[in-house]
Amino acid sequence: MALIVQKYGGTSVGNPERIKNVAQRVLATQQAGNQVVVVVSAMSGVTDSLIKLAKEVHAEPPEREMDVLLATGEQTTIALLAMALQGLGAKAASLTGAQAGIVTDGLHTKAKIANITPKRVHELLDSGHAVIIAGFQGETPEGHITTLGRGGSDLSAIAIAAAVKADVCQIYTDVDGVYTADPRIIPDAKKILEISYDEMLEMAALGSKVMQARSVEFAKKFNVVFEVRSSFNNNPGTIVKAETQKMEDVVIRGVAVDKKQAKVTIAGVPDKPGIAAKVFKTIADAHINIDVIVQNVSANGTTDISFTVGDTDAAKSVKVLQPVVKDIGAREVTATGEIAKLSVVGIGMRSHPGVAAKMFETLAGNSINIGMISTSEIKISVIIALADAEKAARAIHDAFGLAGK
Amino acid sequence: MALIVQKYGGTSVGNPERIKNVAQRVLATQQAGNQVVVVVSAMSGVTDSLIKLAKEVHAEPPEREMDVLLATGEQTTIALLAMALQGLGAKAASLTGAQAGIVTDGLHTKAKIANITPKRVHELLDSGHAVIIAGFQGETPEGHITTLGRGGSDLSAIAIAAAVKADVCQIYTDVDGVYTADPRIIPDAKKILEISYDEMLEMAALGSKVMQARSVEFAKKFNVVFEVRSSFNNNPGTIVKAETQKMEDVVIRGVAVDKKQAKVTIAGVPDKPGIAAKVFKTIADAHINIDVIVQNVSANGTTDISFTVGDTDAAKSVKVLQPVVKDIGAREVTATGEIAKLSVVGIGMRSHPGVAAKMFETLAGNSINIGMISTSEIKISVIIALADAEKAARAIHDAFGLAGK
Repeated sequence: MALIVQKYGGTSVGNPERIKNVAQRVLATQQAGNQVVVVVSAMSGVTDSLIKLAKEVHAEPPEREMDVLLATGEQTTIALLAMALQGLGAKAASLTGAQAGIVTDGLHTKAKIANITPKRVHELLDSGHAVIIAGFQGETPEGHITTLGRGGSDLSAIAIAAAVKADVCQIYTDVDGVYTADPRIIPDAKKILEISYDEMLEMAALGSKVMQARSVEFAKKFNVVFEVRSSFNNNPGTIVKAETQKMEDVVIRGVAVDKKQAKVTIAGVPDKPGIAAKVFKTIADAHINIDVIVQNVSANGTTDISFTVGDTDAAKSVKVLQPVVKDIGAREVTATGEIAKLSVVGIGMRSHPGVAAKMFETLAGNSINIGMISTSEIKISVIIALADAEKAARAIHDAFGLAGK
Repeated sequence: MALIVQKYGGTSVGNPERIKNVAQRVLATQQAGNQVVVVVSAMSGVTDSLIKLAKEVHAEPPEREMDVLLATGEQTTIALLAMALQGLGAKAASLTGAQAGIVTDGLHTKAKIANITPKRVHELLDSGHAVIIAGFQGETPEGHITTLGRGGSDLSAIAIAAAVKADVCQIYTDVDGVYTADPRIIPDAKKILEISYDEMLEMAALGSKVMQARSVEFAKKFNVVFEVRSSFNNNPGTIVKAETQKMEDVVIRGVAVDKKQAKVTIAGVPDKPGIAAKVFKTIADAHINIDVIVQNVSANGTTDISFTVGDTDAAKSVKVLQPVVKDIGAREVTATGEIAKLSVVGIGMRSHPGVAAKMFETLAGNSINIGMISTSEIKISVIIALADAEKAARAIHDAFGLAGK
């Protein structure tokens, strides 16, 4: 008897009919002799409707109350799925994040899981129930409702899988795995059967859209093997696990394009020590995640500092930096969303030299200008114009021979 | 500084605009130097939508999960109202029923409040917050979410008022008080300024629709003085409190019509001891509340037993009684919803004889046939044909001189 954690995203539980389909799938897993814990998101569209409602009563809804509000989305789904399962004759019971023992810190709307005490989960499993848990949410030690931010349901599933020592963690979504590139842009992209945490992390961080990076980080930290697969078919998905030697044989695992970035530039910065620290401390204090940073060579005693952030944080970045710009005597701070980040990812590049050269040659051969470059041990990213993004991705995907037959 | 509990029903918080209006009202109460606890219902229509959704996944939704689902309705309102208050610059925080310390028994969808430990309510009040609490809900000592059934938000408000020892409890609704009769039926009905718990209980139990009887019972038990008033204007409402001597001067406080009753009849019941006990134990075990009971005189060794229940319980009553009918050798059990209960209520009738005679004469004078009669110390009820209900109410209201100027 295996203990299986399944996570279903908002699209998979998007309406009563789909919830009943998920119930069938959970029942089949249970009937195959397994214990099942199911983590669900809010029905697709619900979270956005709630945010809209909140904005009708407050232009910038306070975050504690936003969490109380948003938590109702997953609570609705767990009740409906538990009902649907009971309708099929299964034993099932729902638990909110708090009831499932998910304790978080107090950073409302972006809380981090501190620990999980799955006492009630085990009790329900032991009495033969499928346990349906609200993803995306938890509570602080003081009993305030919190949410984990976008993509938080994946994190809930992986954290619960670690806490209950699950044999398998299946992340059901509306795509049936991780591809060498976004199939909507590159039709001959092929499904990756196995990928290492580090590669998945880079793919996730780079906007492959399948999962948030922090869920993968959590899985890596606790060595939770998980599979990304579709809730609409029975195809095998992509298994994400610790790196194996065989994985190194492939130079590049995939190509990712992230169009949801914006570039923030502080122009005319006096070239003095401590300036960069001031800038990035301000950004960090505002809980804005930055990605690529470039500081141009100094000219006439001033320099430009550019960095990229998620496009939803662009306006906030400019706002919090206005006083800093004044303080340090820089000229101005501006932001543009007309950029994309294109990356190639693969642990194979550690043992196969020349990946960067090949990538830059390919872009040059297609007349695509490179704005910023950032590299890690297993990834090379370039910032290019948004308009060039798809053409560049296709060229790189071909150049590294990633296409399927 | 007074401590005021305010309760707003579903219509009063029916959309973002109305929630903002409620926030204004709460803020004004706070700015007048009071501490405020607000109890809210789900936005009007939300509970019904959730029930509809549940029925799409399960024909008879299991009650534990129904409570998990329905509890999201009030949770949505508390978050929105707390946001709206903060938008006005007020300090405010929301609490779910469980967070507010409302502990209930485990009878899902119809739970009873066992006790309230308002520790967090006091903490928030002490730090200057308006405390916004989800009505209608609580949790069992084991941590399962429960709901209190229809009208449960009033009960929450009165129970919280008792627990925090509030100075005033205001029940805001879409009518501006309790009237001598339903103004939609009898346009010259007038508002009652003060009414005793017992009278209000009879009015409530008889379908005056303003409040559920058990909320009034709770208020009586803990001597919570409350006021029923409108959230759409500033008119004084109806104060409900312990009986005073002055109240006895009025013979009849009001006339109530309850069209939401059904009559269940068991025909051909053998006239033997223990039969009635068997029938009503079965009904009680099914958690069905009965109202008027009549047993006809025995003829040929058999009799008919009739009683009234809420019309939503009629089908269930017939269903649970089928085996009993067989068991006791009765002929059949049937139900009809084509009846109404008309009642006159007033503690004055204890010291003013002849009320029943006047009522029956008035009905006879209007050619209205009386099917069943039931009396208490302060109430006389008759079951009549549904079609006669409004005509009868108007005649009785006039006969007792209840009309306003």
